[in-house]
Amino acid sequence: MKCDILVIGAGALGLSAAYHLKRGNPEKSVLVVDRHGGPGQGNSAKSEGAFRNTFTSETNYLLADSTIDWFTHMQEDLGHDIKLGFLGYLWLFSEEQHRRVTPAIRRMMERGVELRELGKEELQDAIPDLVTDLGDDEEVELMGLESVETGLFCPKSGSLDADALVRSYEEEFLKLGGEVSYGTEVQRLVLKGEPELGIPGEPFVWQEARITGAETGKGEIEAETTIVAAGVWSETLLDPIGVDAMMRPKKRQLFVFKDPKLEGLMDVKGLNEEGALPLTVLPKSAVFLKAEVTEGSVWLGCADDIGRPFDLEDDPQAEEDYYTDSLYHVLVKYFPCFADLRPMNSWAGQYAVNSLDGAPVVSGEPGMIYVGAASGSGIMKCDALGRIVAAFHAGEEEAELYGGRRFRVADLGVADRRVERETFII
Amino acid sequence: MKCDILVIGAGALGLSAAYHLKRGNPEKSVLVVDRHGGPGQGNSAKSEGAFRNTFTSETNYLLADSTIDWFTHMQEDLGHDIKLGFLGYLWLFSEEQHRRVTPAIRRMMERGVELRELGKEELQDAIPDLVTDLGDDEEVELMGLESVETGLFCPKSGSLDADALVRSYEEEFLKLGGEVSYGTEVQRLVLKGEPELGIPGEPFVWQEARITGAETGKGEIEAETTIVAAGVWSETLLDPIGVDAMMRPKKRQLFVFKDPKLEGLMDVKGLNEEGALPLTVLPKSAVFLKAEVTEGSVWLGCADDIGRPFDLEDDPQAEEDYYTDSLYHVLVKYFPCFADLRPMNSWAGQYAVNSLDGAPVVSGEPGMIYVGAASGSGIMKCDALGRIVAAFHAGEEEAELYGGRRFRVADLGVADRRVERETFII
Repeated sequence: MKCDILVIGAGALGLSAAYHLKRGNPEKSVLVVDRHGGPGQGNSAKSEGAFRNTFTSETNYLLADSTIDWFTHMQEDLGHDIKLGFLGYLWLFSEEQHRRVTPAIRRMMERGVELRELGKEELQDAIPDLVTDLGDDEEVELMGLESVETGLFCPKSGSLDADALVRSYEEEFLKLGGEVSYGTEVQRLVLKGEPELGIPGEPFVWQEARITGAETGKGEIEAETTIVAAGVWSETLLDPIGVDAMMRPKKRQLFVFKDPKLEGLMDVKGLNEEGALPLTVLPKSAVFLKAEVTEGSVWLGCADDIGRPFDLEDDPQAEEDYYTDSLYHVLVKYFPCFADLRPMNSWAGQYAVNSLDGAPVVSGEPGMIYVGAASGSGIMKCDALGRIVAAFHAGEEEAELYGGRRFRVADLGVADRRVERETFII
Repeated sequence: MKCDILVIGAGALGLSAAYHLKRGNPEKSVLVVDRHGGPGQGNSAKSEGAFRNTFTSETNYLLADSTIDWFTHMQEDLGHDIKLGFLGYLWLFSEEQHRRVTPAIRRMMERGVELRELGKEELQDAIPDLVTDLGDDEEVELMGLESVETGLFCPKSGSLDADALVRSYEEEFLKLGGEVSYGTEVQRLVLKGEPELGIPGEPFVWQEARITGAETGKGEIEAETTIVAAGVWSETLLDPIGVDAMMRPKKRQLFVFKDPKLEGLMDVKGLNEEGALPLTVLPKSAVFLKAEVTEGSVWLGCADDIGRPFDLEDDPQAEEDYYTDSLYHVLVKYFPCFADLRPMNSWAGQYAVNSLDGAPVVSGEPGMIYVGAASGSGIMKCDALGRIVAAFHAGEEEAELYGGRRFRVADLGVADRRVERETFII
């Protein structure tokens, strides 16, 4: 089998890259392969589908902000129902946190990010179910929980249906004549020496080593360019050829609740049109929750850090204990309406965590482009990253993001990386 | 078992850290554990034992330059026979390479690095066995080999006996009352929640997770502070607690030659007192060789990049094919005296490669300090890194390196890392 461009991975990043590559190279054959039976069945579909333009790093801001504009275009102009909901993000800060993040908030505002600061009373009025003042009972003290002093509301953010998003990209890609092959598992990248001699043991150290495609369960696929967009699984392809995926996989869990007690969270005032709870980040332990308007449920997650292993799992599972023993105790102090509730559903996926700067990587080796290390924000940056991959492939110095802003391709690379460290991480 | 400071790993980094920690904290108990039966038996003793102060990054320069001064102090003042030999490094450049590296050479010279540029004829006079002009035979063209145009000689560099070095650190550490426990394998770091409740499942997300020591084959060792200095094996300790070791392990091989044909390499003129071949880097494929004066042999290695897997191996082996099929063909063009020679000995170790900036990492989590990702230059930076670990432990902003220069501790961390990317890598 042969193609001009082979894309490994039919998640949000792979399909966006494939779409933009095909768009820029209509004469080239572009083939997307994935081991799953359809698009987005790795970690894309397990994502909470949240997006925000609230990043302290200029890089992350540009990637996300332009991708959010593209989401609107996709839904409003291209007619894809990706269930785009601008519910907003709401960061709840204790007094001390607020002091610490104030310079970052100011910088984001100067950059043009729409942000609204809410005082304790405004928060209380908007979300009657939220307890801002935790008092000083023994448990609160033991757990180190702090009262909410302020909220930071970011309107250009919310959530979408990640599954619908990848399907929309796939549809647009197929319309352009792109090809997909599901149920095709890549076993390894093929590395050849140039000039090729056909001798066992190549590539030798004096040859240029070049990626010439991939060995799959359905045979070898030769390609001029291979795009590695396999998310957390990218390391299983890149490690054997000695290329660093610049990320480690970490499990993230989501718990879903549906209960009459939570109806107040669907009746929030003055924050968004839907009157629903924005994606709300608690002051402690990066616990967050959001209303899922279309199904009338509330989703709960947590960006746990130290203590949560780095480990590549094929089928990570949510742990009920994690909710009952860990998250619940934090959650119920700020949202007592969760008292005695248990999740009706839960699942887990994996983040590809870049510990150094929290920004994605787009880098190349001869015959190959790698896009990944998206650190849990791949979906909300997928359109910009797809365009950057296409610009990299075309040998352009800058990519044009949706809406016309320009982005220096090498900024996301390894050799000449220029990325500010992100400090708003969840 | 209990100690104040537990150091995991008795390699160059672990023992240097232990020594400087004990020196700064004579009242504290400092215990070094290692699964091997003695010091430096992981990758330290497998190293080529080379050192140089020729780095383009200011950080790497400071770390190595001050450590080299310490080596001299160790040998001349403290009386340790670490077989320090200032044979020098000699980088051979093609015309095009020379053009490319000229700005970096100028920057290093401005910084005060002693460097000497040699023309083709000077090289020829110094090393009669070196072929600078490769001609244009078919093989040379096929292999993309280029003639040598210039050489860059760096006198403040050379090699030492890595085994003697770690034993010297151990001796100094033991003199101060430090303790070692060999044959003690660490199975995992112990992570506890604070405040500790004694409930299964800790640490919960709302607790501060703290490393309180390590579980070993000889029982649990409790420590106020645990230093992780386990080289490439650090990831097996850090992954389970979700801390990124910021490096991937890559095999490096060394081949040893002893033959009357190589006697000319022990009779080099005008470069060093010993009249022996400096550590010489060929213009192609990062192949290097050096005279090992004390045993009258020549060591050959290669810093292979793409194509050489990232993979953690407990007992990596040298591959004879790698010499005969890959290195030999490059080597023999520049040094025909190797014609038909086979290595009399060979072995392999692993580099802990930091792909992003090629500099080491010293970072912390509650109760723990990690030092690693030294990217193959851990031995030549070991003294500075040990001092930086000790300064980190003392909560100092700056470390004083040997000779008095100061170094900002956070520069090697993750959260506030400030490191120039290294471009002189072998």
